[in-house]
Amino acid sequence: MTTRLSALRQYLNSMLFRKIHYHLITVAVLTALLFSFTQLKAEKAPAEDGYSMWLRYNLIEDEVLLKEYRETFENIVLTRNSETLQAVENELTKGFTGLLGLSPEVKSDIDSNGTLVLGTPANSEIIASLKIQNKLDRLGEEGFLIEQKNIQGYHTIVVAANTDLGVLYGAFHLLRMIQTHQPLANLSVVSRPHMPLRLANHWDNVDRSVERGYAGLSLWEWSTLPEYKHPRYADYARMTASLGINGVAINNVNAVAWFITDHFLKKIAVLADIFRPYGIKVYLSINYSSPVSLGGLDGADPLDSMVINWWKERVQHIYASIPNFGGFLVKADSEGQPGPKTYGRNHAQGANMLAEALEPFGGIVIWRAFVYGERQADRVREAYDEFVPLDGKFKDNVVLQIKNGPLDFMPREPFSPLFGALPKTNTLIEFQVTQEYLGNGNHLVYKGPMFKEILDADTYAKGNGSTVGKVLSGEVFDYKLSGMAAVVNPGTDRNWTGHPFVQSSWYAFGRLAWDYSLPAGELAEEWIRMTFSNDEMVISTIKKIMMTSGEAAVNFREPLGLTHIGTGSHYGPAPWSNRSNRFHQADKYGIGFDRTINGSNAVEQYYPPLNDIFNDIDRIPEKYLLWFHHVSWNHQMKSGHTLWEELVYKYYEGVEQVRQMQAEWDSLEGMIDRQRFQHVKALLEIQECDAVRWRNSCVLYFQTLSELPIPEGLEQPKHDLDYYKELERKVYVP
Amino acid sequence: MTTRLSALRQYLNSMLFRKIHYHLITVAVLTALLFSFTQLKAEKAPAEDGYSMWLRYNLIEDEVLLKEYRETFENIVLTRNSETLQAVENELTKGFTGLLGLSPEVKSDIDSNGTLVLGTPANSEIIASLKIQNKLDRLGEEGFLIEQKNIQGYHTIVVAANTDLGVLYGAFHLLRMIQTHQPLANLSVVSRPHMPLRLANHWDNVDRSVERGYAGLSLWEWSTLPEYKHPRYADYARMTASLGINGVAINNVNAVAWFITDHFLKKIAVLADIFRPYGIKVYLSINYSSPVSLGGLDGADPLDSMVINWWKERVQHIYASIPNFGGFLVKADSEGQPGPKTYGRNHAQGANMLAEALEPFGGIVIWRAFVYGERQADRVREAYDEFVPLDGKFKDNVVLQIKNGPLDFMPREPFSPLFGALPKTNTLIEFQVTQEYLGNGNHLVYKGPMFKEILDADTYAKGNGSTVGKVLSGEVFDYKLSGMAAVVNPGTDRNWTGHPFVQSSWYAFGRLAWDYSLPAGELAEEWIRMTFSNDEMVISTIKKIMMTSGEAAVNFREPLGLTHIGTGSHYGPAPWSNRSNRFHQADKYGIGFDRTINGSNAVEQYYPPLNDIFNDIDRIPEKYLLWFHHVSWNHQMKSGHTLWEELVYKYYEGVEQVRQMQAEWDSLEGMIDRQRFQHVKALLEIQECDAVRWRNSCVLYFQTLSELPIPEGLEQPKHDLDYYKELERKVYVP
Repeated sequence: MTTRLSALRQYLNSMLFRKIHYHLITVAVLTALLFSFTQLKAEKAPAEDGYSMWLRYNLIEDEVLLKEYRETFENIVLTRNSETLQAVENELTKGFTGLLGLSPEVKSDIDSNGTLVLGTPANSEIIASLKIQNKLDRLGEEGFLIEQKNIQGYHTIVVAANTDLGVLYGAFHLLRMIQTHQPLANLSVVSRPHMPLRLANHWDNVDRSVERGYAGLSLWEWSTLPEYKHPRYADYARMTASLGINGVAINNVNAVAWFITDHFLKKIAVLADIFRPYGIKVYLSINYSSPVSLGGLDGADPLDSMVINWWKERVQHIYASIPNFGGFLVKADSEGQPGPKTYGRNHAQGANMLAEALEPFGGIVIWRAFVYGERQADRVREAYDEFVPLDGKFKDNVVLQIKNGPLDFMPREPFSPLFGALPKTNTLIEFQVTQEYLGNGNHLVYKGPMFKEILDADTYAKGNGSTVGKVLSGEVFDYKLSGMAAVVNPGTDRNWTGHPFVQSSWYAFGRLAWDYSLPAGELAEEWIRMTFSNDEMVISTIKKIMMTSGEAAVNFREPLGLTHIGTGSHYGPAPWSNRSNRFHQADKYGIGFDRTINGSNAVEQYYPPLNDIFNDIDRIPEKYLLWFHHVSWNHQMKSGHTLWEELVYKYYEGVEQVRQMQAEWDSLEGMIDRQRFQHVKALLEIQECDAVRWRNSCVLYFQTLSELPIPEGLEQPKHDLDYYKELERKVYVP
Repeated sequence: MTTRLSALRQYLNSMLFRKIHYHLITVAVLTALLFSFTQLKAEKAPAEDGYSMWLRYNLIEDEVLLKEYRETFENIVLTRNSETLQAVENELTKGFTGLLGLSPEVKSDIDSNGTLVLGTPANSEIIASLKIQNKLDRLGEEGFLIEQKNIQGYHTIVVAANTDLGVLYGAFHLLRMIQTHQPLANLSVVSRPHMPLRLANHWDNVDRSVERGYAGLSLWEWSTLPEYKHPRYADYARMTASLGINGVAINNVNAVAWFITDHFLKKIAVLADIFRPYGIKVYLSINYSSPVSLGGLDGADPLDSMVINWWKERVQHIYASIPNFGGFLVKADSEGQPGPKTYGRNHAQGANMLAEALEPFGGIVIWRAFVYGERQADRVREAYDEFVPLDGKFKDNVVLQIKNGPLDFMPREPFSPLFGALPKTNTLIEFQVTQEYLGNGNHLVYKGPMFKEILDADTYAKGNGSTVGKVLSGEVFDYKLSGMAAVVNPGTDRNWTGHPFVQSSWYAFGRLAWDYSLPAGELAEEWIRMTFSNDEMVISTIKKIMMTSGEAAVNFREPLGLTHIGTGSHYGPAPWSNRSNRFHQADKYGIGFDRTINGSNAVEQYYPPLNDIFNDIDRIPEKYLLWFHHVSWNHQMKSGHTLWEELVYKYYEGVEQVRQMQAEWDSLEGMIDRQRFQHVKALLEIQECDAVRWRNSCVLYFQTLSELPIPEGLEQPKHDLDYYKELERKVYVP
């Protein structure tokens, strides 16, 4: 074997590149050849299970580009004097080995062209000597720059930052450029995050079930921690940091007290240790009654000194285990969770007590604004009415986390009026990546455009241009803390997210938290290139599907501003249910919830001119029409249709859009890997079937009230209303 | 690229084997080289995640053996005229490509040496011409023979059987021989299963949780079936069939009615279709009250004609979807499950009604014998007392499924006296592969020796040698149906079983169901070779660990016949609990449950001479002592120690055995892949910690009763009894 081996090695060596490590180049070439041979067979690409998500470092197939990149990254100059810099080296090695089929040498100095230099002025004499201090001054603690430079007569690329974490973010950015086949000539990138807090929220329970998860069990294997460090933990940190996410709340906001016991802190500390080099802080959701359930106290009154001391002692314990602990995420006095109101205290008093305990350690309190009463007149008013009077009452290390819309995570909502209404209260937005109301793990819905719709919405808080994005970035008010959080769903499913395309919403969320100005279509394209292929046909096809998917999801479920038509599981349709009726208010006359000044007057919570626009049936964007107005079935829409016709057309359009997505997807056969092709194909079949069920359920039910016909030319529902009502009972959804 | 490719191909071709497909050989060689290069790095073997289980087809490293095997399997002669034969071809291609780095040509005739011929007399003229009919006559429907033969002047290996399924079993056997490096010279294997029913029971719930699972969610992804056929389903079928298992009950015996609705049958039919080529029938656990919950009937009385007709109609529906449906598995009138007793009917009446519905389609009823009352005097008596009077009352297509011991799945129990006591009732044994009482997914426990202890136990039903194994194989009584079932735990964990070594118990179970005479040590060795390595040092080390593990598990938990000392979760120790006290009956005088003729007289349920032996404190094997006797702390044991001393020594021995297992495992570093090495190492750390907790909890608690000292020379418990009691409250177990 040895003889054969060395013969082969000589042979390969004679015909290929110079200067590169011996067996690694061989591995690379062999990988390339293997890939080529595979192509000789029927399937173009081998099966892939999606585990690598957007950090899929497959060998670049474009030979010209490959050659250029290889010549650019022959050497790396980098010190390894921190865990973060070690992570940088590991990632670059992994990335270059996969993408370029070579493993650059890590050196201490530049001695040839094709060198990548990474560092901060503090840890790299080369960086310190570059006279880029005024650029660095503008990068903050997390930003980076990437520049092509001539140093000591050699062609180099420089990744510089003020901190090691900035260098890591720069390294991920550079890898992304290679993954997406960007040119490197005259490279000059300057990037810093728009918002200080960029957070993932996991709704993971202590028994490893995941609320609204749909992708297996919780990533965190409590029964084997702290001893066993599952390889998944480090990969999760890589994925997360690659987007610039810098904090994760690892447990459900519907929280049990277990997580802050010493027993669990030992386990959580292992995760925190794995995340730390990647700049990711651990946050914990807490149960407000923990002093009772864990501490044996009689109550959890935030003004009770016993309670205050109990939390201080717990916080000390937490920081002893996790020195860079981020803080608490709190769902209080909301949907059955305990909170300060039990003791006659308000949300600010409740939050500030915890904030005081965390303050000495630099920790923060993230207080959720998702509150509503049992039998509200108009639930969407409530969070605003509750929190606006408290503006200015929260401590500086408290931040209010507000869902993107005023209701819940409906397929479409106008932005919550709390954005812009809290000049003196730190504000975080809460998006949902997981598809609670969007087909769980079964439907393809890229949420990038939905995130953008909210971020680009103008609050008019300080006149024109006070967009939600600018509020969150602290450009409108002088927030100490602000940013974006998303409820993510990763679980033990091999591809992390169940439906492979949930990854794309996670990706878009993370990138937007870094830079809310990025276009959703551009992020879709990045993700496709990094996850599937750089083939232009593949990109344009998948992008078309993704960019259609959000409107399709709205159209076949809840078009024109409708909400909460789903079953209790939030999966299927139940327009006939009591809850649904409470929200859509359909009757003989028409449909929609009157929130004008004649109704609940929720419009008053928006700044002028939005309040007037929303109040005016002729000026309101039709996508929000039924959110704010109870509208006659015969109301004339801009299209010329009546409302009834328009509603029905929207439902039918949703189904057609899904069918179009199916056709587009089918055209990809053989152009992407078989495993993911077949998986998504099957899921689209389910989605089409569900879309038809939604459409028919809603159209047939609303027809019993409008007593109007389905417009001609549309396919008639296959079954009657009773059949669809029966499905609610017959179709099992966990 | 093309030029380079063809140059490399020519080069490879010039120095290597003849006659074999072009790019496939290249792939093989490249794989080999990749492997060799990897060895140049620090780690001997790359990370492996255990997904392939015992069907791990890694290239054979022994060059002499590799050459021999390659020369033997250059061609395959096989018709593909059934799905099963297609599965045979797929498996051989997968196996040979991986193990031998070549893909033999599939031909219709023998035209050279090195040909493997597979088939039945019906589908292969070559097989039909071999004059092996009298051998075939002895193989039954599932057996096979493998022989080296000279046919038409060529050296061949023949795999012959009476059915395509027999051929599949033979192919798996042949692959196993290669995986375990067995010589092929003068090969002559004849094999047929000892028992007709070889079943896996999944305790999988409709919400995809798995009762006593510990390895993720259920394999069956209900939300995406029937559209999406997860690749895991086919791999499950391969693993299962490779052991000869021919039926799987896919859902929990604590059953909900959902599974037999049309909605679910569509989904289950997809699984059944995937399993069918592998000879695996689907069975369903049913809820006895289904006629009420699904059918809207007033009751589920098995003698009620409405109920009878409802089941007949359901069974017809099932067979319309799943033509080879196996039958129902029923837990009735047991632990809260409904059953015929509600209606004043006995188990035979309850089972026979279902059996009649299934009979026309060839289906069977598997009726569980696991029954006990709320407040029994001696629970271990109950199943025998209930079912022996019903012997002969069950229809021919009913089989009684009896847990291996009379209590539950304790670490050690004597065999259930029902084995041997039911000459006229078809009998299945129910083993547990999943580690309900054995550290869940955290502890290493190879159960092969435990299975053997039961199978080799002599019931004396027809005098000497009437072992449980012989009862189950139908050698003692003339059973129409009989065999072995095991509760298995596979889930969505990447390695299927959570703890990698649970695979070994699953493996041993399956192989013993095929041939109960196989030694547990031999099966351990097979599994190690197929799953880890053929290196002698690796084999002997892992085998030592496995063969120690079962006794260790008993010693540190419940030595000398103790039972049910665990917490409610069945994980940690709680000898102080009420339930535990009911079973161990420890007091000032001594410890143990008196089941002699002076006590509950459970001994009477065994045949002579066993009843006398078990009744006699001087003759009973000490491993069962406290199961049958309440024994004074000062009782003199065979070792010369008092019972107290012996008990304490056993607890300490258990901990030492685990520590020894740890040391052995640590010695494997670098000799097996890093990922599994580190996983098991971490789990053994947990196991050692748990073992100490068990030992100290039990010894300290029993000491409060015996008031005797821990023998000198033993390490003293680090904490007092209160500390260990407190752990029950502090340590979260889901």
